[in-house]
Amino acid sequence: MTIAPVPLRLARHARLREHLRQSGLDALLVTSPANVAYLTGLFASAGAVVITGDRLFLVTDARYRPVADNLAAELGGVELLIAPASQPFESVFAEALRTVDDGCAGFESVHLTVKQHTDLQSRLAGMKCGCVLQPVEGLVERLRILKDDWELAVLAEAGRRLSDAAKFILLKALAGMREREVAALIEAELRRVGFDKPAFDTIVASGPNSAVPHHRAADRVLTTGDLVVLDFGGMLDGYAVDLTRTLTIGPATARQRQLLETVAAAQDAAFGVVRAGTLATEVDRAARDVMAQAGLAEAFGHGTGHGLGLEVHERPRVAPFRAELPGEPLQPGMVFTIEPGAYFPQWGGARIEDDAALTASGAIWLTDVPRCI
Amino acid sequence: MTIAPVPLRLARHARLREHLRQSGLDALLVTSPANVAYLTGLFASAGAVVITGDRLFLVTDARYRPVADNLAAELGGVELLIAPASQPFESVFAEALRTVDDGCAGFESVHLTVKQHTDLQSRLAGMKCGCVLQPVEGLVERLRILKDDWELAVLAEAGRRLSDAAKFILLKALAGMREREVAALIEAELRRVGFDKPAFDTIVASGPNSAVPHHRAADRVLTTGDLVVLDFGGMLDGYAVDLTRTLTIGPATARQRQLLETVAAAQDAAFGVVRAGTLATEVDRAARDVMAQAGLAEAFGHGTGHGLGLEVHERPRVAPFRAELPGEPLQPGMVFTIEPGAYFPQWGGARIEDDAALTASGAIWLTDVPRCI
Repeated sequence: MTIAPVPLRLARHARLREHLRQSGLDALLVTSPANVAYLTGLFASAGAVVITGDRLFLVTDARYRPVADNLAAELGGVELLIAPASQPFESVFAEALRTVDDGCAGFESVHLTVKQHTDLQSRLAGMKCGCVLQPVEGLVERLRILKDDWELAVLAEAGRRLSDAAKFILLKALAGMREREVAALIEAELRRVGFDKPAFDTIVASGPNSAVPHHRAADRVLTTGDLVVLDFGGMLDGYAVDLTRTLTIGPATARQRQLLETVAAAQDAAFGVVRAGTLATEVDRAARDVMAQAGLAEAFGHGTGHGLGLEVHERPRVAPFRAELPGEPLQPGMVFTIEPGAYFPQWGGARIEDDAALTASGAIWLTDVPRCI
Repeated sequence: MTIAPVPLRLARHARLREHLRQSGLDALLVTSPANVAYLTGLFASAGAVVITGDRLFLVTDARYRPVADNLAAELGGVELLIAPASQPFESVFAEALRTVDDGCAGFESVHLTVKQHTDLQSRLAGMKCGCVLQPVEGLVERLRILKDDWELAVLAEAGRRLSDAAKFILLKALAGMREREVAALIEAELRRVGFDKPAFDTIVASGPNSAVPHHRAADRVLTTGDLVVLDFGGMLDGYAVDLTRTLTIGPATARQRQLLETVAAAQDAAFGVVRAGTLATEVDRAARDVMAQAGLAEAFGHGTGHGLGLEVHERPRVAPFRAELPGEPLQPGMVFTIEPGAYFPQWGGARIEDDAALTASGAIWLTDVPRCI
C-alpha cells in the first residue's frame, strides 16, 4: 500500500494548525480513523492523533507498534504513545493532552464516544490537568474535501481500474445467475484489477429488488425482463471509488429504455454544471430538474451524489438544499459521485453512477464505462 | 438472509427487560448496530431501539422503511419511528424517550457519540421531558454471549462452510502467487461456499510478514522456505466465523515444524480445559503454559481467543487475567476462537485458529480442517 508522500502529510499538519489557531484551540484530539490515516498514514482500528501548535502525538496500541515506528521515523518529530498491552489505546489520550496544560483542546464530537469522553475527563482530573475539552466538528474533514495532486492521481488510477472491472462484468452473460453469484464475480474482478478490497457491500438488485436502493445481493435469479442495478466500488491505497450501472436482461421494454435515458440525461445535466463556484446543491438541482420534467421527481428519493476519498461517503454533499446544511461551493480538488436514480416499488428501478473530479482546468470524469442503454 | 425466529427475538426482549428492571432502568436506548440486529433482525447503518417495560420502538431512516415495516409486522407491537428524509435517524431518538417521561433511560456509552448525546439531551429539554440519561455498558452483550439453539445452528453451519473453503484453499499450489492473489482466491471461495461476505480483511502473511499478526495481504510472492499465515472468515446470516492456518512453502525446516507443533499443542491444551465453569482466562492460561514450556512465552503476544457471533470480536475474552476485566466462567452457549501463535520479527510466525462451542454436552469444534503440519 502506498501512502501520501511525507511533505504532503506535513503540509496537512500545517494547514490543520492554522485552523486550530483560527478556532482558538490549543490542540485537537483526532479519533476518526480516516482523519488519523490522512494526517499520519496509519490505517488502524485503534489509532488517534493529538496535534498542538508544535507537537504531534500518534496514539495506538502494541499491535501497530512496528507500523507506527516507521511512520514516526519518516515524518520526524512525531511522538509515539503506545498503550501497554493490557490497556485500550484510549487510556493514553490523557498523556498527550496533559501537555496542553490549562489550554483548550478540541475533540471530534461525531466520533468520540461518551465513554471515551468520560474516561478522558476523569484521567485529566486525576493528573490535575486543567485542559478544557471542547466539542468540534469537521476540522480535518475541511482539509480532506480538497484533494491534493497525489490524492487526485490515486483516485484517477482507481477510477481507471474500476472502469476496467465494470467493462469486464458488463460483457458477461449474467442471465440465469443468482444475485449473490454476480456479486462474487464483481468482487473477484475488483481484486483482479488490483483493489485492496470492495469499498462497500456490492449491490446486485434484480427485477423488483432494483426498486430498493439499499438491496444488497440475495438468491434471486436474474431473469429476462429484469432491470438489474449493479453498484460496486473498490479501495485503492486507502481511497474509495464507486460506480453503478443498470442493465436489462434481454431487450429493454419501452418503459425501461425511457427510464434509463432519463436517468442518463439527468446525470449529464448534473455534470454539465460542475465548475468552480457552483454550489453542490445546484448540481443536485440540475439532475432533479431533468427527472421532474419526465415526471420522475417522486421516484428520485435520494441525493445526487457524495464526496469520495478516504471514506466512501464524505463531503461534499451533492443533495437538495437544507437550511442546516447549506450547499458548498465547488472548488478544484473536489471528487464526488453523480448518481441519479428512480425507483418504482414492485416494478423496479434504475441508477447510473460515475465519479467526477473538479480540477483546475474543469470537470472530468474519473470513470468511463458504457451506460448500457 | 435468514434471521432468528420471532419467538426467539421476543424472548430476548423479555430477558433484556428483566435486566433493565434489575438495573433500575425504565428504558434502554440501543445504538450498537449488532445489538439492534440481535433484538429486531434489522441490519442497518442507521438503526436504534428504545425498549421500555412494555414498549419497543424501532428507529431508522427512510431507506430502511420497507425492511422495518416487515420486521414490525412480524414481531407485533413494535412501534416504528422513521426519521424524515431530510433528517438523520438520531433526530427521532427523543420521540421514543419522551414516553419515559421523568424516568431513567440507559444508553450504551461505548456506542453513543458525544454529539448524539448532546443533541438528545437538548431535544429532550426542548420537549420539557424530565427523562434522565444514564450511561450503561454491556446489557445486550450480556445476552448475546449465550447463543440460543438457532444461533448455534447458524454458527455450526458457518463453521462447516468455512472448513470446506479452507480445505479447498489448502489443496491449492500457492507457491509463486502474490499475497493479494491468494487473498482474492480465498474471498472468491468464501463466496462460493455461500458466505455473504468476508468477516474481516483477509490476512495472507508470507515469509517475514508472517511475524506481523496484523499484516493483511500485499505484493510479496509466496516463496520456498516461507511460513504463510492465512487468516480468514465469513459472515453467514449475520454471524461471523474465523479460521487460521499456517503452512510452509516447500518442506518445513526443523524450526518451522517445531513451532507449528508447539502452537498446535497449545491449541489442544486450551480446548482440553473448555467446560462449564472454567474461567475464560484459564483457557488462555492452558495455551500459554504450553508455549512457555517451549520457550515461546515472549513470542505469544496476543490473547488466545475471542467470542464469535454478530461481531467477529465479542465476549467472552479468552485472554490473560486483568484486574479490571475478570475472567468469565464459561457456560453452555458460548462460542469463541482458540488461536495461539508465536512471532519472531524478521524471521516469521505461526498461528492456528479454530472455532469452539461449549454445548450442554461439552466442548465441540465448529471448524475441522487439517493443521498442515
